[in-house]
Amino acid sequence: MYFCKEIIHSSMKKNLVVLGSGFGAFSVLKETDTNLYNVKIISPRNHFLFTCLLPSTTVGTIEFRSIIEPIRNIKDAEYIQAYCTGISENNNLIYCKDTDTKKEFEIKYDILVISVGEITNSYNIEGVNKYAYFLREVADARRIRIKVIDCFENASLPGLSEEEKKNFLRFFVCGGGPTGVEFAAELHDFIEEDVRKKYRGFEKLIEIILIEAGDKLLNSFDAKLSEYTLKIFKRQKINVKTNSYITRVTENEIFVNDGSIYNYGLLVWAAGNTATELIRNSTLPKNSRNKLIIDHYLKVNGSANVYALGDCTEIPDEPFPVTAQTAQRQGKYLGKALNKIAKGKEIKPFKYKDLGMLAYIGSHKALANTNQYKGSGFATWIFWRSVYITKLVSLKNKILVLFDWFKTFVFGRDVSNF
Amino acid sequence: MYFCKEIIHSSMKKNLVVLGSGFGAFSVLKETDTNLYNVKIISPRNHFLFTCLLPSTTVGTIEFRSIIEPIRNIKDAEYIQAYCTGISENNNLIYCKDTDTKKEFEIKYDILVISVGEITNSYNIEGVNKYAYFLREVADARRIRIKVIDCFENASLPGLSEEEKKNFLRFFVCGGGPTGVEFAAELHDFIEEDVRKKYRGFEKLIEIILIEAGDKLLNSFDAKLSEYTLKIFKRQKINVKTNSYITRVTENEIFVNDGSIYNYGLLVWAAGNTATELIRNSTLPKNSRNKLIIDHYLKVNGSANVYALGDCTEIPDEPFPVTAQTAQRQGKYLGKALNKIAKGKEIKPFKYKDLGMLAYIGSHKALANTNQYKGSGFATWIFWRSVYITKLVSLKNKILVLFDWFKTFVFGRDVSNF
Repeated sequence: MYFCKEIIHSSMKKNLVVLGSGFGAFSVLKETDTNLYNVKIISPRNHFLFTCLLPSTTVGTIEFRSIIEPIRNIKDAEYIQAYCTGISENNNLIYCKDTDTKKEFEIKYDILVISVGEITNSYNIEGVNKYAYFLREVADARRIRIKVIDCFENASLPGLSEEEKKNFLRFFVCGGGPTGVEFAAELHDFIEEDVRKKYRGFEKLIEIILIEAGDKLLNSFDAKLSEYTLKIFKRQKINVKTNSYITRVTENEIFVNDGSIYNYGLLVWAAGNTATELIRNSTLPKNSRNKLIIDHYLKVNGSANVYALGDCTEIPDEPFPVTAQTAQRQGKYLGKALNKIAKGKEIKPFKYKDLGMLAYIGSHKALANTNQYKGSGFATWIFWRSVYITKLVSLKNKILVLFDWFKTFVFGRDVSNF
Repeated sequence: MYFCKEIIHSSMKKNLVVLGSGFGAFSVLKETDTNLYNVKIISPRNHFLFTCLLPSTTVGTIEFRSIIEPIRNIKDAEYIQAYCTGISENNNLIYCKDTDTKKEFEIKYDILVISVGEITNSYNIEGVNKYAYFLREVADARRIRIKVIDCFENASLPGLSEEEKKNFLRFFVCGGGPTGVEFAAELHDFIEEDVRKKYRGFEKLIEIILIEAGDKLLNSFDAKLSEYTLKIFKRQKINVKTNSYITRVTENEIFVNDGSIYNYGLLVWAAGNTATELIRNSTLPKNSRNKLIIDHYLKVNGSANVYALGDCTEIPDEPFPVTAQTAQRQGKYLGKALNKIAKGKEIKPFKYKDLGMLAYIGSHKALANTNQYKGSGFATWIFWRSVYITKLVSLKNKILVLFDWFKTFVFGRDVSNF
């Protein structure tokens, strides 16, 4: 009898389909009660990534697997490793394509949650897609880590002139937001703490150039903190070029708008985001920047059963900062709201409370830009580490990151290349 | 004055060039006194790899970076990330090609040590190079780990027949030596301990097939241990096909000599080794299997200043087992011998003492095949772990591997795919 009851119950549950496995989607999944919904997750990435610590993995301060959590660890939800290639709102179904075998298939939904984030924007600048390294996924961080070491190994080859060595050791970072700043900071630490020992005599040949189109770094932070960052970067010999942008990239050269041309070893591109192909091609209501227009209940405008959240969305009269924090809070709200809806309870609109931002700027210094506290320096770095250890999504992640920090402190960063 | 003395001293030291970064080369490097030689290491791989534990990394029992050690951690030796493409004995120089930028250059030597190992032998069987996964380097293990997870994700796609799922979940291992056996064992453990929880309902669809051309597994082990392995593998539902070999591989099918054809998800190829291109094309004296012929002082026959050791060599009247152990002992001997030669001391020929072999066969069971002790089972598995922890080349490696074992025990293996 129990068995039959279960089956009936399961077939009566609505099909909730979630697109994505980032902060938004992961939070929806964690909150949603699988006794109330049949939950399906569609994402090409079978794990959640704690992006806030991604820059630390590019040089091995933290290992890749320490900040990811398999989606399959969420029990009773069905995960499908595939891209969503299209949405048919009229038929309540989505079109999918598997990442490995490229098999195509459709999935029916009763309720759809779109939390696919955005992709890196190359602004159609020539050569960027081909030669620049993006920093968005763990695989990106791994590619950067390999390339950074290759730059040092290349500069170690015999018979090179000082100029040739310098060219291999010129690291370009495009974008003065948190990702670009934190990558530059991590690279600086790596050079300071590890390269000195393992690639001797290179200190004076290395150059880090951080290029930003706006007139200051970390635009979303307090002006004082932004200036402090500039001061620290100057001391760290990170060459910051504001009001500048890259106009073209070739295999060996970077062209800047002021007419200067640089040879380079590595170009990391963290200059901004843009809509995914799915959203760009979608017929759902969007604004001029290709963001889905949602209401205060995170429902896509004019739709009865399609919700959206995170970077790929905007609430017209109340745009939130495009951050992991926003996506996470929206996800948590939506998961709870969906549970209430299934139980026929009333739901309240989403309310956002900004907890502020943090950024690491190298040499054991960080920035905190919160409502209660605006600080910088070593103590803030301790605060930065404490907050992220707390925010990591699993006990395993917390233990692994703590262990990685210990390992880096004691043994230094691994320069093995594979 | 001190400074001048140092320079003169340095220019009077002989140039010792070591090719490779495996067990043989690494042991030479560890022993050689850099006060006596200017040491240069040429290898495309900038790290030493403890290959004995490589199968454990293919499913995440141990992480990749836990069993590698950067060559640059050896102080006062110059490392160059490049392939050696040729040796000109008459001119005492080698030709090199950098791995990343493909730049070509030459390096002079006074003494050359060749320890380049071997590569995987595909026996020119159609499709093997294209579709099979070798298991030799950390990058190979990473590719296998990604593919294993992809097989499970592919089998989880909606709308598949049971037959289609089975095809994705048929894992083929070619080669019944230690590498093939240990990979099959690790894969079994992964399925038993992790897949059951994270990919439910797959247990009965999975098949592991281990194919071996000879009439038994682990040919170099005692017959009883070989039979024991067969018994355990039967219990673990690993399908062992002895006296069988693969005749052709396509994208989806494996053709076996008995006429059977299998669809498959992954083919791991560990069927034997063959000479590298460098050795094959070299004019140094070789035997019929393209192994460099060396004497009891590890000197290449007829050469005054070229030494060779490890898998790529053979002493005609006393062939040693082709193992990491042999290479390591030869490397240690040669490093010490070179120090003595530089000091004008007499050297004795290399003496080999076999310490025996170990292998992991899954389900917390291992084999030990030593002179003093031939054992198998759980206690031997504890012994197996203790020996390898002892043999790992650095304190960092020891701590990391212990931590990985703890992590796998507590949290299971990570199925994140990137």
